[in-house]
Amino acid sequence: MQRMSSHRLPVPLDRATRLVNHGPTVLVSATHGGRSNVMAAAWNMALDFAPPKVAVVIDKITFTRGLIESSGHFTLSVPCHAQAALTSAIGGSTGQEIDKAATLPGLAWIDEPASPAPLVDGCVAWLACRLLPEPHIQQTYDLFLGEVIGAWADERVFSHGRWHFEGHEGLRTLHHVAGGHYLLPGGFVGTPP
Amino acid sequence: MQRMSSHRLPVPLDRATRLVNHGPTVLVSATHGGRSNVMAAAWNMALDFAPPKVAVVIDKITFTRGLIESSGHFTLSVPCHAQAALTSAIGGSTGQEIDKAATLPGLAWIDEPASPAPLVDGCVAWLACRLLPEPHIQQTYDLFLGEVIGAWADERVFSHGRWHFEGHEGLRTLHHVAGGHYLLPGGFVGTPP
Repeated sequence: MQRMSSHRLPVPLDRATRLVNHGPTVLVSATHGGRSNVMAAAWNMALDFAPPKVAVVIDKITFTRGLIESSGHFTLSVPCHAQAALTSAIGGSTGQEIDKAATLPGLAWIDEPASPAPLVDGCVAWLACRLLPEPHIQQTYDLFLGEVIGAWADERVFSHGRWHFEGHEGLRTLHHVAGGHYLLPGGFVGTPP
Repeated sequence: MQRMSSHRLPVPLDRATRLVNHGPTVLVSATHGGRSNVMAAAWNMALDFAPPKVAVVIDKITFTRGLIESSGHFTLSVPCHAQAALTSAIGGSTGQEIDKAATLPGLAWIDEPASPAPLVDGCVAWLACRLLPEPHIQQTYDLFLGEVIGAWADERVFSHGRWHFEGHEGLRTLHHVAGGHYLLPGGFVGTPP
């Protein structure tokens, strides 16, 4: 199933790191040889501003890892409160056994021409990344680095370089503690940038 | 100034990653040659469960970086809502120009025998780390890896492997967006672990 998120707008690359700066859990997706897959990753962070880069931990047992290594690209999609059950289902299943997009209710791809890897529909931010091959740390620490080549956000909750979740309870980002238990951003402190 | 946080209790190492799993900004401290310093880092993540490991981005211009490379140890302290101004002040000053602990109001060290690097008093979680030297990624990406050798949390807001901020507004963790603007964890979704 493919749909278009009507609220998805491009984010300037020099502000792309702000999409993950506050520490949300992300969904990591990739495509190769006609097969797409997605996994959940709480262990991700920004790595640089210009060009923007990210780091993410991708276990050897994941099916997505092979797709990333073969294709050289991946996407980070930032899921929201309304997708908590979907995020846990994505994290609790493997592409080695099922085609997640064909099996998990609510999981659909967005085809974005600027991203070789698919975006997950219904999320609130997306970062299209080109793998920066670093075989030693990939093998030793399951640590993958990427350069961000495209970024988008749901303009209802992210615009002008900041998050504003007020009035959009279902669109708050998910911050995983353990076992499908997520904290949600509530208030804020400091002047919005 | 040295004080002891009376609510600080050890966290089992197999649950240490839960202290940063939800993506808080951290304070990175280190000591070498009689000099201690601390910096702020939104770009941090867990890297492994057993033994627990973390990754953090430490820019070449920081004074703390030299202390870490010389001593082989660092600590991640997780600051809270009540420390938002202090966290921004730590991030906005450099140990090359000032002795932060002697200059910034509210900044004090906790001496913890199990941690070669000092802990920041008033925070809500602490991870003592041994640097895992990886010169290539340190030089190329400012990316530093550490093995967690000790972990503690404020038992008022973290116990039994989960965060519970209800009733402790000032102890909520800080999730940096940009320019001293932080999101705070509010509610949660899913069954606590």
